[in-house]
Amino acid sequence: MIKVSVMYPASLGTRFDHDYYRDRHLPLIKSRMGPALKYYAIDRKLADGMAEIPATYVATCHLLCDSVQAYQSAYGPHAQEISGDIRNFTDRTPIVQISEVVVENSARGETEALRHSARSP
Amino acid sequence: MIKVSVMYPASLGTRFDHDYYRDRHLPLIKSRMGPALKYYAIDRKLADGMAEIPATYVATCHLLCDSVQAYQSAYGPHAQEISGDIRNFTDRTPIVQISEVVVENSARGETEALRHSARSP
Repeated sequence: MIKVSVMYPASLGTRFDHDYYRDRHLPLIKSRMGPALKYYAIDRKLADGMAEIPATYVATCHLLCDSVQAYQSAYGPHAQEISGDIRNFTDRTPIVQISEVVVENSARGETEALRHSARSP
Repeated sequence: MIKVSVMYPASLGTRFDHDYYRDRHLPLIKSRMGPALKYYAIDRKLADGMAEIPATYVATCHLLCDSVQAYQSAYGPHAQEISGDIRNFTDRTPIVQISEVVVENSARGETEALRHSARSP
């Protein structure tokens, strides 16, 4: 299993509409990618003062797919439309990383981790 | 729910023992944090050439806890021991970010996301 992490750098004065991101942008990605997108997750930086460490990213989403090929086949044809939607919630350009999922969820036990590992490209 | 993401920057010649990280370091964190650590996840950058985009991080782990307070109470007393173990698998210093989990797993439905959102600090 692979994880595409889309990370929006935080900086002073960053415009980021978290409601739009959760309610419109990720559902757009989900609808366009179809079943190739196993699931997604969204992280949001804590409110200022909640953490001792300054946040590197204002928001991040993670897109989980079976393989790089599955991701590219499902995302590629819609890349322009999805990228075009970014201006609707932020003025930042995201950093994108594709990772192999070594352990998806430790609470589900090693067998699941090994199963995913065996399926990774 | 909150997520502590520990991200190890990738660069030419980075030493990183992924086996030690998976088999020793994360289990150490789990054993020290106890039940305050709901679960963890590990991501690893794809092998060179597998992705078109160069990886920003060689490896990342995510520690999921109910709150910042729960994390700090469980991790704090063991911070020195855990940090001291880093030299055993890498020469890099990680970037740490604490995030609010807005959507943990979209496939589990909105009710779970809302439940976690309500429990977040």
